[in-house]
Amino acid sequence: MKDEIRVLGVDDGYFLKNKKGKVLVVGAVMRGNRELEGVISCFVENDGMDATEKLIRMVNRSKHRGQLRYIMTNGLTLAGFNVLDIRELSKKTRLPVLSVIRRKPDFKSITEALGHFADKRTRLALLDKAGDIYSHKRIYFQAAGLRQSEAKELIDKMLWKSHIPEPIRVAHLIASGVTYGESTKRV
Amino acid sequence: MKDEIRVLGVDDGYFLKNKKGKVLVVGAVMRGNRELEGVISCFVENDGMDATEKLIRMVNRSKHRGQLRYIMTNGLTLAGFNVLDIRELSKKTRLPVLSVIRRKPDFKSITEALGHFADKRTRLALLDKAGDIYSHKRIYFQAAGLRQSEAKELIDKMLWKSHIPEPIRVAHLIASGVTYGESTKRV
Repeated sequence: MKDEIRVLGVDDGYFLKNKKGKVLVVGAVMRGNRELEGVISCFVENDGMDATEKLIRMVNRSKHRGQLRYIMTNGLTLAGFNVLDIRELSKKTRLPVLSVIRRKPDFKSITEALGHFADKRTRLALLDKAGDIYSHKRIYFQAAGLRQSEAKELIDKMLWKSHIPEPIRVAHLIASGVTYGESTKRV
Repeated sequence: MKDEIRVLGVDDGYFLKNKKGKVLVVGAVMRGNRELEGVISCFVENDGMDATEKLIRMVNRSKHRGQLRYIMTNGLTLAGFNVLDIRELSKKTRLPVLSVIRRKPDFKSITEALGHFADKRTRLALLDKAGDIYSHKRIYFQAAGLRQSEAKELIDKMLWKSHIPEPIRVAHLIASGVTYGESTKRV
């Protein structure tokens, strides 16, 4: 794996809980773990079901598409409980997708939080479809379109000063900074 | 001057010409010329007169304020002809301000473009107040609160692969990327 490989980091902006509306999703195009080469964005419905479709379109329409080698997302949900189908995202963009989380997900509280959704089963099935959860360094991840060993190598390449891979850290700073007026530290 | 000095780069987002409305302004907090440490933002009126006031508030309210040592802006105007008073910005934030431009401004076309503004003279006076234009490497700059030699040292520290200082290049990528869906190359 080259040092200067192009990776898209994805995170969502701030949204008001239980309030309907669109949420900004930011994609940070990084070249290696230092250089910000581009920024792309789209909007997804808060608690909607359009995150996968909107991300596929955002990536495939981008002028950066040809350079990209991997997609890293901050978790499996954007804009509340808009669940990402990382296998579908990987298939339709033809790029390996790595979903990174700071803490091992607590499926009991997720199931509880999904209590009021009419399509609760569909969303839980999507979360389940993301597959096994692995750990590496101080984070956890799920992978679509790449093996565990390749995923770990990618994480190593993308780490710098933080324990969060740079593409995700940068996407988080941007998304929270432009929607909240000030970026938040915690990814 | 330390290598890891904190500099705020400022640029505006995309706006529709002659259309009234608010335009996103992004501040990228860089530590040295590599590390994005935070993102702040505010909105200013397209062709309004509130850019200076809104920037002062954005900087002074930020949690990054105590760390910041310099402000670098992409030119003297944000959101159309919302002219920045860099001397006022420097005074009220107590930070030196450097306004960077790629090309030497053509005052004749600026005066012509300002033709329809009732307060044309006020805006031209603000542009004039920014003072002498210096050149360094492949860019031009105007400075408030710092000497020419210090400004050149700052520019040198903030350059990396581009001929645009990193704080401004990054602020530009973010602002254009989140308002236009895709970042534009030209600062």
